[in-house]
Amino acid sequence: MKISHIEHLGIAVESIENALPYYENVLGLKCYNIETVEDQKVKTAFLKCGETKIELLEPTSPDSTIAKFIEKRGMGVHHVAFAVEDGVANALAQAEEAGIRLIDKAPRKGAENLNIAFLHPKSTMGVLTELCEK
Amino acid sequence: MKISHIEHLGIAVESIENALPYYENVLGLKCYNIETVEDQKVKTAFLKCGETKIELLEPTSPDSTIAKFIEKRGMGVHHVAFAVEDGVANALAQAEEAGIRLIDKAPRKGAENLNIAFLHPKSTMGVLTELCEK
Repeated sequence: MKISHIEHLGIAVESIENALPYYENVLGLKCYNIETVEDQKVKTAFLKCGETKIELLEPTSPDSTIAKFIEKRGMGVHHVAFAVEDGVANALAQAEEAGIRLIDKAPRKGAENLNIAFLHPKSTMGVLTELCEK
Repeated sequence: MKISHIEHLGIAVESIENALPYYENVLGLKCYNIETVEDQKVKTAFLKCGETKIELLEPTSPDSTIAKFIEKRGMGVHHVAFAVEDGVANALAQAEEAGIRLIDKAPRKGAENLNIAFLHPKSTMGVLTELCEK
């Protein structure tokens, strides 16, 4: 697969309201969008940092995967998303052929209407890895 | 502080030798340098991904902080490093004034001869955060 850059970092936080003052006032990054993804039970805040976005993820329900992540490991980096230039479907096929375990067998729509798919952290040395394309 | 981009992601792995085939052959990133930082008891492999580096961190001793991280949390993202444009010393002063707990009170030399300093994850919503400048 052909990766151009890190599209975003997903960071699990208990509260976007509490986290934003650090990201905006201390680090000086700008939040340009906040949206709720109902089916993921998550509220997301997007900040730009060079060519990469920081995606803060706040659980909107105790049974959201982000809530479970925070309960188990605490707040912190939840996933790393790479921008692929030659298609997510193609990248998934290559990853599967290399023996990588897939969470998504086919691309689906994610935040900001990107085509996305996740690789399983068991196959990626512990890093929950997202592949995405516009 | 003025952050231009994510300089690198530090990722803790048990073995660079075992991790590199995934990063190089599946993700298609290129490793351009491997070095050992004796005083940190860590071996590092650098791969480029757009404007950001992936820094794989392998412990060279059971008492290295990376070994302890892996023992406690498993392999995965260890820290996020931001490139600051207006100086690490200045950024540290601003962070401290904002009530952020510092691991390094003053910049020190890190890998690739960058000036670096770490902010404490207790103050940064669980993300061990490095600031660095050339």
